[in-house]
Amino acid sequence: MSEIKKVKPSLPSGTRDFLPQEVAKRNYIFGIIKSVFEQYGFQQIETPVLENLSTLTGKYGEEGDQLLFKVLNSGDYLKDADAATLSNKDSKKLTAQIAERGLRYDLTVPLARYVVQHQNDLVFPFKRYHIAPVWRADRPQKGRYREFYQCDADIIGSNSLLNEVELTYILHEVFKKLNINVTIRFNHREILMRIAHIFYKKELESKSDTSLSKDDFYSEFIKALDKIDKVGVEGVNKEFADKGFDLSNLEFLWTFIKRMNEAKTVAEKYAIIKELLNASNVDFDWKAVYAGLDIFIEDLFEKFESLDNVKFDFTLARGLDYYTGTIWEVVSNDVKMGSIAAGGRYANLTEMFGGRDMSGVGISFGVERIYDIMEELKLFPQDALKTTKVLFVHFSEANRDFAFPLVQQLREANVSVELYPDKAKMEKQMKYANAKGIPYVVVIGDNEMQSGKLTVKDMRSGTQEEKTFAELLSFFTAKQ
Amino acid sequence: MSEIKKVKPSLPSGTRDFLPQEVAKRNYIFGIIKSVFEQYGFQQIETPVLENLSTLTGKYGEEGDQLLFKVLNSGDYLKDADAATLSNKDSKKLTAQIAERGLRYDLTVPLARYVVQHQNDLVFPFKRYHIAPVWRADRPQKGRYREFYQCDADIIGSNSLLNEVELTYILHEVFKKLNINVTIRFNHREILMRIAHIFYKKELESKSDTSLSKDDFYSEFIKALDKIDKVGVEGVNKEFADKGFDLSNLEFLWTFIKRMNEAKTVAEKYAIIKELLNASNVDFDWKAVYAGLDIFIEDLFEKFESLDNVKFDFTLARGLDYYTGTIWEVVSNDVKMGSIAAGGRYANLTEMFGGRDMSGVGISFGVERIYDIMEELKLFPQDALKTTKVLFVHFSEANRDFAFPLVQQLREANVSVELYPDKAKMEKQMKYANAKGIPYVVVIGDNEMQSGKLTVKDMRSGTQEEKTFAELLSFFTAKQ
Repeated sequence: MSEIKKVKPSLPSGTRDFLPQEVAKRNYIFGIIKSVFEQYGFQQIETPVLENLSTLTGKYGEEGDQLLFKVLNSGDYLKDADAATLSNKDSKKLTAQIAERGLRYDLTVPLARYVVQHQNDLVFPFKRYHIAPVWRADRPQKGRYREFYQCDADIIGSNSLLNEVELTYILHEVFKKLNINVTIRFNHREILMRIAHIFYKKELESKSDTSLSKDDFYSEFIKALDKIDKVGVEGVNKEFADKGFDLSNLEFLWTFIKRMNEAKTVAEKYAIIKELLNASNVDFDWKAVYAGLDIFIEDLFEKFESLDNVKFDFTLARGLDYYTGTIWEVVSNDVKMGSIAAGGRYANLTEMFGGRDMSGVGISFGVERIYDIMEELKLFPQDALKTTKVLFVHFSEANRDFAFPLVQQLREANVSVELYPDKAKMEKQMKYANAKGIPYVVVIGDNEMQSGKLTVKDMRSGTQEEKTFAELLSFFTAKQ
Repeated sequence: MSEIKKVKPSLPSGTRDFLPQEVAKRNYIFGIIKSVFEQYGFQQIETPVLENLSTLTGKYGEEGDQLLFKVLNSGDYLKDADAATLSNKDSKKLTAQIAERGLRYDLTVPLARYVVQHQNDLVFPFKRYHIAPVWRADRPQKGRYREFYQCDADIIGSNSLLNEVELTYILHEVFKKLNINVTIRFNHREILMRIAHIFYKKELESKSDTSLSKDDFYSEFIKALDKIDKVGVEGVNKEFADKGFDLSNLEFLWTFIKRMNEAKTVAEKYAIIKELLNASNVDFDWKAVYAGLDIFIEDLFEKFESLDNVKFDFTLARGLDYYTGTIWEVVSNDVKMGSIAAGGRYANLTEMFGGRDMSGVGISFGVERIYDIMEELKLFPQDALKTTKVLFVHFSEANRDFAFPLVQQLREANVSVELYPDKAKMEKQMKYANAKGIPYVVVIGDNEMQSGKLTVKDMRSGTQEEKTFAELLSFFTAKQ
């Protein structure tokens, strides 16, 4: 390493270093999420960062394919490349010839691959969690990174709605423990489809023809409705009008929304939805994943009665092309920001890898946004910043060497201790303690060595006391 | 995701999935290492997986450069590529034009970059640990992966030998806690250089000229000596003879080794080494990093007297071109395998990124090998396999719904509990508990619902008992 060109240190755009305090705070969040996942019986798995591009490509739409980070094959990768592709500078075509692997884009497609690949070694229903970075070659911007963590829990191979109930409780528990006030909104994709279907039928009747196919009609309608939070009824109506829809055919929806908002009891809401569902029965053939929507409503409405931050919201439309059953979205009540957790149920997750037909249901925490909210609201508790409890400082190497066995004894008693390693001015040593947020300093000088009475300074209050080592030991072990 | 081509699930060669039991065991190892690191005041940092190739290239020798995984630039990456390079199919030259980023190769170069880039935000001496995967496009073989974890603790910016002492205690502590019998060998690169220097002077005297430059001579000598463990004195002599060295000039070394082996006390060993050092003083100008070798010997020999698995070994030569001071290597006493931890001190770590002159010293645990040893010797304790403590099973959905609030109460009391989600045969539910290693099952049937007495089955002993829910709660919370 002797003749290395000096390089100005830099990072690829959209990636980050984390300072010790940041890692400690992030670990605090991860720790709470993990402990709740484990309380509900989820087990951690890991998959490699590198996946074959054959696994990843085509799973995230065309835009997603372009956002995949692709890894150059090793060695003389151009050897067998096609000459015409090279001379045409056809980047897209060449990629297939020179890059076989890429960085994972999310944790869901790797999960599907994993479940099929290890199906004989897994216990079903398979409850796994996975906390790991993923990569997307998106344009970086505030709060959006190219390398960021996902934090997912999923259940594969069970159609029971109990999973939905438990996942909702997990969302509730985690944010309660993090001390973040949230609203957990949930919906069922079939309800959206049924509303779309009622509208579609009305449009057909009144116009005899719409220019859109049924599926596209559903999709356009749901996309527009999803914006109701941001643009209100007026905005949604405008959007529908622009698309050429007949607004009078939407009256039923506004009436429905109004009645739902006015309903006071769960039973009332339940009855209103049932009515809507019945109205949509004619010609509706969208295949639901599991037991049936009425069970969903009955079960979930009932179970969530006790959780006042869980709200059914039939305009919620997240992950349009992906989820087929229940969907969730969690937002902070105190900080305006996008969703900080989300999830849903998807049919046939494993089908793309030739696995047997299995439904999956899962949630994902947006740790980067949760971090920002906790910073903004100052929600990190002091002890999230795991740091050294005591620093021993000294006036000479002899003092330092006297301290070493004492330090070791404290460490054996499970106290996190440091001994300042170098000969340095007292001021510098104290500065080290301050900068690292170490709450106690023990000063070792010649007097202390002779008397056996050590001076302990509380760095926050500035007070100091003399203690024998035995007193010190019980003082710090009691403080754990 | 409707029209996806089905793909047979596979992984890139040299990468791995981890099953839940494997992750739990790996986390057990990481957990112990982390807790010891933190007891000694090290703080965790994170750096991105993606680094600029300008950061990585040239730091690991030419072979290392070839083993770097390079990431294709996004978008139309061929647009500005040189036409001649393309038509010549010059892979090497093209790489520089189409790949700006790569995957980190180790955690040390990123640390150097990090320290320089964030020097104003860090507290020095900077004690950090970092546990994360790294990538090398090596040929995969048994026990060697392309994506594997490193687990490092380093101190940057302190020349004190106390760091060496503490790192040695950390090595000792971690393996004690993991229950692995090890030998921790240590050496100082300057001792090797001085032995090489004595030999070099003798060769010069006897032959008036050796064909090798001084540095190459040192290097060849040390490489040959490093093999003494594997090939013995005979083997080393043969190697020296093949290189054209005059074996009679090596007599001093064998005498030295013999005397060291026969020495009984630390004081005796200390005297023998001092003698060797004195003999090497003429013309020796290799710059030591810090305080001086005699302090190294005095300090370390003395401090390690109490640790009987720490051995000074002056033939240890690890990391020839990298380390400049103390070096360590740890091997298992029970399983024949390469080193399972190692480390050393290196001068000027941060120089390559234009940082001010700072010395670094650190150790690294080989977690993959530690895992293999612990498996082979069955050293993982039962409770390393963090799993659900209790599974509630049931005969009907009504039974299941009765169980749900009980399950939630246990979870609130911090017990890890699962409720089997689906309607299924009792046998299938029991199989689930067995396969997941869940030690207790609570059976809920109509009788139990009526009587309030629940049947708890101990899955290991097969015994079962009836308990009220209150009894159950105290039973499981006591078992934490």
